[in-house]
Amino acid sequence: MKEDILYHFNLNTGTLNFPAKFGDVKFVCVGGSPWRMKSFAEYIAGELGLAVPNAEYPNICESTDRYAMYKVGPVLSVSHGMGIPSISIMLHELIKLLYHARCTDVTIVRLGTSGGIGLHPGTVVITKQPMDATFLPRFEQVILGKSVVRSTELDGDLAEELLQCGKDLAEFDTVIANTMCTLDFYEGQARLDGAFCSYTEEDKQNYLAKAYAAGVRNIEMESSVFAAMCKLSNLRAAVVCVTLLDRQKGDQLSSSHDVLHSYQQRPQILVGHYIKKKLNASKKS
Amino acid sequence: MKEDILYHFNLNTGTLNFPAKFGDVKFVCVGGSPWRMKSFAEYIAGELGLAVPNAEYPNICESTDRYAMYKVGPVLSVSHGMGIPSISIMLHELIKLLYHARCTDVTIVRLGTSGGIGLHPGTVVITKQPMDATFLPRFEQVILGKSVVRSTELDGDLAEELLQCGKDLAEFDTVIANTMCTLDFYEGQARLDGAFCSYTEEDKQNYLAKAYAAGVRNIEMESSVFAAMCKLSNLRAAVVCVTLLDRQKGDQLSSSHDVLHSYQQRPQILVGHYIKKKLNASKKS
Repeated sequence: MKEDILYHFNLNTGTLNFPAKFGDVKFVCVGGSPWRMKSFAEYIAGELGLAVPNAEYPNICESTDRYAMYKVGPVLSVSHGMGIPSISIMLHELIKLLYHARCTDVTIVRLGTSGGIGLHPGTVVITKQPMDATFLPRFEQVILGKSVVRSTELDGDLAEELLQCGKDLAEFDTVIANTMCTLDFYEGQARLDGAFCSYTEEDKQNYLAKAYAAGVRNIEMESSVFAAMCKLSNLRAAVVCVTLLDRQKGDQLSSSHDVLHSYQQRPQILVGHYIKKKLNASKKS
Repeated sequence: MKEDILYHFNLNTGTLNFPAKFGDVKFVCVGGSPWRMKSFAEYIAGELGLAVPNAEYPNICESTDRYAMYKVGPVLSVSHGMGIPSISIMLHELIKLLYHARCTDVTIVRLGTSGGIGLHPGTVVITKQPMDATFLPRFEQVILGKSVVRSTELDGDLAEELLQCGKDLAEFDTVIANTMCTLDFYEGQARLDGAFCSYTEEDKQNYLAKAYAAGVRNIEMESSVFAAMCKLSNLRAAVVCVTLLDRQKGDQLSSSHDVLHSYQQRPQILVGHYIKKKLNASKKS
């Protein structure tokens, strides 16, 4: 029988039999696209030796098309759509799910793509701290009509462990840096190619230079609320995004489809290596 | 040959052959769910007498799973995901598409679901003006690190025409009222059932009562940026959302699946009637 877990119109996690189904979850990987999170589930099944030939991984949230969720052993792979509001709905429901399933010692990682600043395209950025569009390390939201500011602190040890995985693999550049999180992809990220643009190339470059000076090396659209909500829930959290272009050099992607595809694999290769390493270490101990 | 239109990583509308494919578009209907917008495309095909037995409507944006787009004669049906950032990416790209295709006299309607305030569930709300979470009729966004405030004015005549369609149909209650647009579904809408809640039922009721006093009768998550961007582009725009529950009475849906399904059809029935009426009138003139 199928159960709807992630659907903000009918979620009622308390009434479902979660401990049996989800109690063993130790790693949650989230990303924007349902298709990519299905692909991650297949990848991690292979990495962990849990792959079954011709297996179809069922989407646990199949009856909603708003999110997708796959479970492979101790790993959940969940899509979150685009932007802060979309990921925030998913995280509210995921955190309730983990609570009701009595999961302990859970590590959660957002895998994504981003625009880089001053990095070679294809560099993987492990976020030190998400910053808002004014380069402050905070997430501001409105609750009951009043502004509430939350910390976007992530787990520093986890970031260092992930950086070490990048060194183990030695397949691509991996750095720890600040990430700017915006509410808009075009004007909010100083792009010149949206439907509207009220500033010049020079204004754009000045803004990106200020971001660089604040330690920002990539820009995406979900990390701040992700960090804030994980911190409030005591989840060990990290953000791992590959840069697809250098925004100081342009606004549109210029790499070939194959090159972009290989870049997009990098966060999952890094995080897959991390999960395998942790599971092997826990078997030995 | 398939072309990617709505995908923020590879959009380049200027290079595609748009006039031939999209020049006849007069109505654009947008909604959160790709599944529902496919269903709307099928519905409007039937209403306009354009349905072909066993026809499959191709998703024009098939190679991205972030949005879906269907075209039925002069009507585009496009999904936008959840929340302001997600719909804003789609609208930037849609507005560029309409511009390059040299479309004129286009009407755009957002069809959606919402939480009601002081209305019977199932009431259809045609938005007078979207308001932010402090009940101001504005959309604030950050551009180059600075706050920019935009008007959320919608087309008053179009709202009245849609209200008249509700009267023509006489199948369900339809009202014109203000709509509150929030960045968060749980804490941002004073829900008590999210992963976190730092306020009481009384605080929630006080907040909803203030919204009611400001003329707000429903709450959703996309209308403010939709109104602002359509106004900047001179698109005739309306927001038509059904209320699925009365938020003063609860936070979770209590109606049966069948009842909710019938509520969800109402915006498309109303807008389908409007489109048919306009097309018939233009044939006669």
